[in-house]
Amino acid sequence: MTATAPKGFRAAGVAAGLRTGDGPDVALVVNDGPGRAAAGVFTANRVKAAPVRWSQQVLRGGALRAVVLNAGGANACTGPAGFQDTHATAEHAAAALAGASGTDVGAGEIAVCSTGLIGERLPVDRLLAGVDASVNSLSRDGGDAAAEAILTTDTRPKTVTVSGHGWTVGGMAKGAGMLAPSLATLLAVLTTDAVADAATLDGALREAVRVSFDRIDSDGCMSTNDSVLLLASGASGVEPSPGQLTEAVTVACDALARELLADAEGATRQVAIEVSGAANVDDAVEVGRAVARNNLVKTALFGGDPNWGRILAAVGTADAAFDPDRLDVAINGVWVCRAGTAAADRSTVDLSGPAVAVQIVLHAGQATATIRTNDLSHGYVQENSAYST
Amino acid sequence: MTATAPKGFRAAGVAAGLRTGDGPDVALVVNDGPGRAAAGVFTANRVKAAPVRWSQQVLRGGALRAVVLNAGGANACTGPAGFQDTHATAEHAAAALAGASGTDVGAGEIAVCSTGLIGERLPVDRLLAGVDASVNSLSRDGGDAAAEAILTTDTRPKTVTVSGHGWTVGGMAKGAGMLAPSLATLLAVLTTDAVADAATLDGALREAVRVSFDRIDSDGCMSTNDSVLLLASGASGVEPSPGQLTEAVTVACDALARELLADAEGATRQVAIEVSGAANVDDAVEVGRAVARNNLVKTALFGGDPNWGRILAAVGTADAAFDPDRLDVAINGVWVCRAGTAAADRSTVDLSGPAVAVQIVLHAGQATATIRTNDLSHGYVQENSAYST
Repeated sequence: MTATAPKGFRAAGVAAGLRTGDGPDVALVVNDGPGRAAAGVFTANRVKAAPVRWSQQVLRGGALRAVVLNAGGANACTGPAGFQDTHATAEHAAAALAGASGTDVGAGEIAVCSTGLIGERLPVDRLLAGVDASVNSLSRDGGDAAAEAILTTDTRPKTVTVSGHGWTVGGMAKGAGMLAPSLATLLAVLTTDAVADAATLDGALREAVRVSFDRIDSDGCMSTNDSVLLLASGASGVEPSPGQLTEAVTVACDALARELLADAEGATRQVAIEVSGAANVDDAVEVGRAVARNNLVKTALFGGDPNWGRILAAVGTADAAFDPDRLDVAINGVWVCRAGTAAADRSTVDLSGPAVAVQIVLHAGQATATIRTNDLSHGYVQENSAYST
Repeated sequence: MTATAPKGFRAAGVAAGLRTGDGPDVALVVNDGPGRAAAGVFTANRVKAAPVRWSQQVLRGGALRAVVLNAGGANACTGPAGFQDTHATAEHAAAALAGASGTDVGAGEIAVCSTGLIGERLPVDRLLAGVDASVNSLSRDGGDAAAEAILTTDTRPKTVTVSGHGWTVGGMAKGAGMLAPSLATLLAVLTTDAVADAATLDGALREAVRVSFDRIDSDGCMSTNDSVLLLASGASGVEPSPGQLTEAVTVACDALARELLADAEGATRQVAIEVSGAANVDDAVEVGRAVARNNLVKTALFGGDPNWGRILAAVGTADAAFDPDRLDVAINGVWVCRAGTAAADRSTVDLSGPAVAVQIVLHAGQATATIRTNDLSHGYVQENSAYST
């Protein structure tokens, strides 16, 4: 069900021949209303793909009728012609949806998301044919097919459903590589049948992203195409409070973020870095990210080596308040470092399982944040050196 | 000859049993004068090893009689006891040198540098015995032995000699991992028989480091122990201009920096990233570093993939002035990207050799900087996951 779990949404996923192999590569999510309110959060990378530029424009209106997504090409660094390709995709989808529904649909109500290799034009004829096929196969059960069609080097689809009182949040995402704040995802579409206006959706989505996608960092590399969209149909007739909506969207984003990390390229271990005793949340996040993206920490964890010295060396590069001589570090519950020096015997740390909990106490305040990452493995090097992605 | 190429210096390298195997692991470089002026530049990491804290204190006096260096342990994150170990090492070296020379030598004239695993105490008895053995084997030919004794995962010693008019600069360094600004080295000792005061040495060293060690970035990881020292004996009797001295020290540092990169853990390709058309040098350096530490760029280069899209995605994360739609990128002379989009066919890029030249033009000004790095390979993951370093 996923993105089609909430009432008022249909979706589809079809094979349009955009990528090698014959798997699905074009997805469509349609909001049948009655509401059309929507919000979006996009990559902070200044090199933005054409579909990101397009969707940002579209969302200034605070409403979306549908989202077209494609794998097989990022349509990034493709110049004005690439932007026209995205525009043409939205125009074509609008016309096809209008024809199928007998109502007016404008291109300005269609968001576009693309993922794949940077720097090459999309085969637009095939993409537009895929949009037609998607419109023809839209269904209330289409969420899974859509989630399948947006995958690239992902090994499995990522979906979520969160239930409110009489309303639901659904979602799908794809990730795998270039996972870093902000945002630590490539594409995610969230849907809800709650009644909500665009401003409420925007507030809920930004807060949810801040504590989910923005707190995972797989490889420190920020994508050109990151897009997280939230569409509300209002079809449940129930209007939750902004707090309730934010809570549900946060749970959904957090679940998708964890699925992204668990399926990150080459990952063999899931690492949660909890930074506490920080002067403020920004400091805690800064320290957590510095550790999460440190290649020497990540290779040590791949090798099952509880090398807390590398963790301290990474903390030492963070722009945050702390006294290096007061830092405490635990790995899987063993406090291997107290007051900046060796404490418990590192050989007592159990790193036999795939889950690694790193705790860092700064002793500079009361704030806490958890950053999630994974290890750096031969698999990561292999996937990213052997294939152009 | 190396660090003992300039007149007035003796050195030694001995095996003291600090590390597994029976290789040399303690080095000593002695300045026999008549001058004692010295300068040092140290890691910007806030988690600083005990020998870094000690040597920073010592260098406030602007004079050094000798430098003790050891492999087999970084003496970082070892608390007050670790600092006492460093202090005891300097005291012991001062007494041994005083006994051998019949002159007064104070611990405050002895710098200490350590490298190896973070978080474990050094076996001080063995280290002090190694200092004694070093004092007993000091010679004018000892530079090579000293350069050998400071290696860790390095596969070969790094040394340099630069000739001035009647004076010389010599040096040695070790690196291999944790190579990132600033400084992109672990340990380097430079010597000269030029006549120079401490302030002139300090100015020359800072300028040299700024355009050499600070412009290489192997793995983005900043060490706790980075130390670059410059000692002047004045034994040539020649006083070069500050500009001449800076020039020679810069040539020496640049040569050592390139040797460090060429021997970096797992490196199979040497990558020079030249950023031009920047609004200022800081912007050029910022962009170069963003590309140099991007794991997706580095794995692509390991795989021989001229993936310029990943380069643009990395540039897009840099805090520098540029218009994403005006960026030009060449790889080994082929302009694969012009005005932010595809230009020459990427398949015409020749990546068969180990040298890779990346050129990035920002079209935002006249400033240029070159950052050097290497690829991210299976060898890097292997070395840093299989061994505790």
